[in-house]
Amino acid sequence: MNPKQLAGEKAVEYVKSGMNVGLGTGSTAYFAIQEIGRRFKNEGLDIRAIATSIESENLAKEWGIPMATFADVDHLDVTIDGADEADPQLNLIKGGGGALLREKIVASATKFYVIVADERKYVPQLGPFGLPVEIIPFAWEETFRQVKALGCMPTRREKDGKIFITDNQNYIFDCDFGLIADAYKLNDQLHSLPGVVETGLFLDKTDVLIIGKNSGELEIHHKKG
Amino acid sequence: MNPKQLAGEKAVEYVKSGMNVGLGTGSTAYFAIQEIGRRFKNEGLDIRAIATSIESENLAKEWGIPMATFADVDHLDVTIDGADEADPQLNLIKGGGGALLREKIVASATKFYVIVADERKYVPQLGPFGLPVEIIPFAWEETFRQVKALGCMPTRREKDGKIFITDNQNYIFDCDFGLIADAYKLNDQLHSLPGVVETGLFLDKTDVLIIGKNSGELEIHHKKG
Repeated sequence: MNPKQLAGEKAVEYVKSGMNVGLGTGSTAYFAIQEIGRRFKNEGLDIRAIATSIESENLAKEWGIPMATFADVDHLDVTIDGADEADPQLNLIKGGGGALLREKIVASATKFYVIVADERKYVPQLGPFGLPVEIIPFAWEETFRQVKALGCMPTRREKDGKIFITDNQNYIFDCDFGLIADAYKLNDQLHSLPGVVETGLFLDKTDVLIIGKNSGELEIHHKKG
Repeated sequence: MNPKQLAGEKAVEYVKSGMNVGLGTGSTAYFAIQEIGRRFKNEGLDIRAIATSIESENLAKEWGIPMATFADVDHLDVTIDGADEADPQLNLIKGGGGALLREKIVASATKFYVIVADERKYVPQLGPFGLPVEIIPFAWEETFRQVKALGCMPTRREKDGKIFITDNQNYIFDCDFGLIADAYKLNDQLHSLPGVVETGLFLDKTDVLIIGKNSGELEIHHKKG
């Protein structure tokens, strides 16, 4: 079994009947949704779900999983999502897929946050992937200068030769800060810039990190303390 | 002369030829733009301007003032804008007009920030006006719960019976926190919520506050230290 599938399916052990479940986005979360769908269909797993992307919502609907919105549901019991990087403190970089803001809102509404990844995503220090930052299009050149002044060269994300636009009608800067020495400080500095909507740093949110290894083994890290 | 006009025109003394000038929005900033336009036309005041709203941009264009964007200009020498409230520390509440995010980006690019107001806006402690907070439409119900948990009852702003949408395609919550004991703490708490884009608290930004009084006098407060 491939390591992403291994991790994705393992995570579904945290999902129980009666729960409100957040469904993440990406290649590892995909396997979690497939497994939830299978259990919903074959084993009577009774849940309601909120997805972080149209893609994941459509996948869930194919299985017939009942979908909710935050108008119906005031919290999520468990969310399973992927990450672009995770460190030993279970802090994350997310946003490679461009859905970081929705993913962060979902994370903040979640009681138990499960991250699934293959072993390449587990790094001793955050940074190599680059940090996605969602920014307001108005005066983006000024925000570019302000982000750059924090010590990176931002690249405004493009897709198919066009400016990439998020679901919230914003831009993404992919920022190379090298290895990030103090993710909390950097996150605060970025948030203090008015043009910055949200960063891809997910700090102190993860309860369990499930890593699928090429060897076929799983590595499970729990939040400390 | 009405107190708004008095304050607006006084502020234009800070504008000199060769400067990049930020033009605010609202009934007091209006008089500043009119005075800048008059000096541009009659006295050869040579500036470039960036406006915080379409309305102010159109007014400036009527006078023929050359307009710039943040692609042309990497800072503003002076910006003149209004406020909904200002306190003795020159901290502000802005956003009554719904342009708080653009106004804050402009403020952050400004070297010398001049606020004009009539005396009703000058308060011993921020809060009575209510605090506008710009939020992402996605999962706004969840953001509503999170903002409410900070100690206010938010109202989602409407206009003409419809949900008010900002220039950035977001919503505004008008939040009644009563008198705000610690504006810095509240600002940080609101910024830590992923659905919050920006708040109407403008802290440590103002260099000069010019207050027009009904008596016809001006009161000028300079930043301390």
